[in-house]
Amino acid sequence: MNQHLRRVAKQPSVQRLPAYLRLIKELRDQGEVAVSTTYLAELLDLQPIIVRKDLSVTGIVGRPRIGYDVAELIAAIETYLGWDQVREAILVGVGHLGTALLGYSGLADYRLRVLAAFDSDPGKSGRDVHGCPVHPWETAPSFVSAHGVQMAILTVPAAVAQPVADTLVAAGIRAIWNFSPMKLHLPPHVVAHQEDLTAGLGVLSLKLRLLLATEE
Amino acid sequence: MNQHLRRVAKQPSVQRLPAYLRLIKELRDQGEVAVSTTYLAELLDLQPIIVRKDLSVTGIVGRPRIGYDVAELIAAIETYLGWDQVREAILVGVGHLGTALLGYSGLADYRLRVLAAFDSDPGKSGRDVHGCPVHPWETAPSFVSAHGVQMAILTVPAAVAQPVADTLVAAGIRAIWNFSPMKLHLPPHVVAHQEDLTAGLGVLSLKLRLLLATEE
Repeated sequence: MNQHLRRVAKQPSVQRLPAYLRLIKELRDQGEVAVSTTYLAELLDLQPIIVRKDLSVTGIVGRPRIGYDVAELIAAIETYLGWDQVREAILVGVGHLGTALLGYSGLADYRLRVLAAFDSDPGKSGRDVHGCPVHPWETAPSFVSAHGVQMAILTVPAAVAQPVADTLVAAGIRAIWNFSPMKLHLPPHVVAHQEDLTAGLGVLSLKLRLLLATEE
Repeated sequence: MNQHLRRVAKQPSVQRLPAYLRLIKELRDQGEVAVSTTYLAELLDLQPIIVRKDLSVTGIVGRPRIGYDVAELIAAIETYLGWDQVREAILVGVGHLGTALLGYSGLADYRLRVLAAFDSDPGKSGRDVHGCPVHPWETAPSFVSAHGVQMAILTVPAAVAQPVADTLVAAGIRAIWNFSPMKLHLPPHVVAHQEDLTAGLGVLSLKLRLLLATEE
């Protein structure tokens, strides 16, 4: 992945876009056709200038006194994030976290379709988890190439994350959403995003520490 | 929560500190006593100048040619995040996500001790999930006040998140780590951090879109 791509994908604004999208879709479902910067800022607990800057990456500019056109803004964010088309994925590792993700409505909301899940435990094969069929892990490579799947969600234990990723990449996977605590070594033609569940805990701990400090 | 506190807690540097901490602890376990900015930058896929800036918030400065003292840096990050002391929490909602979190080693690594979990399903009470006892939800308020617990992890369905949070706050909870997709309305003496699992998906989708665009 080149430097420009790295810089773009790491911007906090990009990381906030899914939250904007969810909120603006809610407003649309409530019948709103326009939304002001101030209102978005208030709901998302951000400064209005940050909202304006965040949304400017999509190419959409708000109009004075009217704000943003809700439908236009949804389409622009979806296009920018590559969510204007359905993306197909597989999930590997049907433990509790994998099961929770398969049941997470957020994935379908953002047009990610998990075609199949895979697990090395033969007892899990043949099951249907939240509407998604579970197949034996050995069949994952042939599934990936047969269906041309580009994205994989990894919810496997840390110890097997790298070999599992290697197998998936060899089969044609181009993007890995990695929930294992293991940083993956991947060839340059593959992108990844590592989830770190403790990052949020860090922010919350710090907020609590600062809050308690102001009371002392 | 005041403006300064908001600004501090939202800084990307703060959000990256848990990743630094994990990495530096790994290096310590491998017997390293010092680590250079360049090495940290490479492992975390960041620019060296960003690493220096991120770590400067803890008050620790690297020395030329030597780098950071590993033990000193661990202590400084832990103090800054308020992780130098064990923090006790409860978890509410023992579904798949709740169960996955109770089994997540990252929590104990960062000195978060989940004293008990609570669920409204009577079939789950009395169980032990990854070493954590599950109690009936009705007993949560008395548990919180009896143990002086300040932090709660919320892994309940969106529809009940707000009433559950209200009950916890009335019982004395001061910090809520919210995994439900519902934004909570909380009084000013309570802090929260909302996890958004789709944020990572947004970043990954964008990376994949940009990667494929460079190949066209």
